[in-house]
Amino acid sequence: MVQTKTAASILDNLAVVLVRPRNPLNIGAAARAMSNFGIRRLRLVNPYKVAFREARSAVNAENVLRDAGEFKTLSEAVADCTLVVGTTAVRNRALQHPLHRLGARSSSVIRQHLQVGRVALLFGSEKIGLTNDDFTHCHWLLHIPTQPDHISMNLAQAVAVCVYELAREKAPKAPASDAEKDNETPATAGQLEQITQILRESLDISGYVKPGTDAVCEKKVRGLVLRLKLKSTDAEVMLGMVRQILWKLRQPQK
Amino acid sequence: MVQTKTAASILDNLAVVLVRPRNPLNIGAAARAMSNFGIRRLRLVNPYKVAFREARSAVNAENVLRDAGEFKTLSEAVADCTLVVGTTAVRNRALQHPLHRLGARSSSVIRQHLQVGRVALLFGSEKIGLTNDDFTHCHWLLHIPTQPDHISMNLAQAVAVCVYELAREKAPKAPASDAEKDNETPATAGQLEQITQILRESLDISGYVKPGTDAVCEKKVRGLVLRLKLKSTDAEVMLGMVRQILWKLRQPQK
Repeated sequence: MVQTKTAASILDNLAVVLVRPRNPLNIGAAARAMSNFGIRRLRLVNPYKVAFREARSAVNAENVLRDAGEFKTLSEAVADCTLVVGTTAVRNRALQHPLHRLGARSSSVIRQHLQVGRVALLFGSEKIGLTNDDFTHCHWLLHIPTQPDHISMNLAQAVAVCVYELAREKAPKAPASDAEKDNETPATAGQLEQITQILRESLDISGYVKPGTDAVCEKKVRGLVLRLKLKSTDAEVMLGMVRQILWKLRQPQK
Repeated sequence: MVQTKTAASILDNLAVVLVRPRNPLNIGAAARAMSNFGIRRLRLVNPYKVAFREARSAVNAENVLRDAGEFKTLSEAVADCTLVVGTTAVRNRALQHPLHRLGARSSSVIRQHLQVGRVALLFGSEKIGLTNDDFTHCHWLLHIPTQPDHISMNLAQAVAVCVYELAREKAPKAPASDAEKDNETPATAGQLEQITQILRESLDISGYVKPGTDAVCEKKVRGLVLRLKLKSTDAEVMLGMVRQILWKLRQPQK
């Protein structure tokens, strides 16, 4: 049975992931806001090098910045996470993804996941935010309820508002989620990505992928696999199955 | 009798008051956060002149900055307000004032006041915050629940978190069930069984099924497929994939 963690310790499971940040002031300010609310795990995907170096001197955020992880790709940055949530200013984008508003309810869902596994909260670059490609790594999206005529928030302020909301003490307990009920660890993003890649290659060999549609097909597979909401044990079973099928498909044919 | 105002219009009664701000970036960023959450009334008490001039060019905050009021003294800045609340990082200061924590309850109290009159929310300078003299103008004090070892927030982030909290919509309704959230038809048992059978046969051809374990393997696959909780559309996608893979596996091999 999964043990219920304390409010402070579940926040250790939260990773704030800045994807391609450019401005050292923003990186430093995001780290400072994290320190203010007791969130220590910062990850940067392909940051602008100069910005990251300069940010390291930001006041009141030295520990967070010193321990920050740096990754080449988003999929590496979220590999150990069981829930990946992307933030977006846009609320009506024609998206494949469920979109939730930052607030008590979405925060409660994230906190339930933090009890059993690591959660990545993604923030895109200052100019363009997260791309559609970044979104394919997300289970769902989160928007901060800003005004329709001023939707775009400063990066570090967006981080501040999100970590404030996630760190706030809860009042009423939300009903148990499905995740709590079956009381089992969700699959990590790394496991899901392995399944995605093996399945994609199997489909490629099988002729499912039409020429020139590789990228579209990969996104389609990744989206499908994410929506399966696999538990870790089932992910292992599925990995075993698709590996065996791929092995067979690779055997030379007449 | 006082008429109840709409959520948007009561925010017009909120004045964010920056007392002796020094850094133009902070003034601009505070104004931008206000714009994000629909709060228009900014007042500056004795700002550092150069800072205020530079801040006027901050992105996405032009209206708030253009209309900002400038005051020589705090008492002038809050003269028309019926409630004056000072923010402070310190929670155990030996104060004459009641101290409330930012959150649903204190936010609700402020919103009740906004229904009937103007409320000033004060933020001190970056270096020293509000002074004891400033506090004498306050009805009560508000602290943002930061970590004991990192209590000091960036000025603009403190503004962002406070206006987010005050502007948030009240009283979340009962959490929606998962079914309500995705609002989509679940797969039929027939669809799931088709997937199960095709996957089982693929695994058989691939050598995943050990001799004599057919029945066990079929149950394993069926259990896995059931736990995926597929929607009808995803079941169709998955059927298309496994059918193609099975077709390929059935091709004669060398």
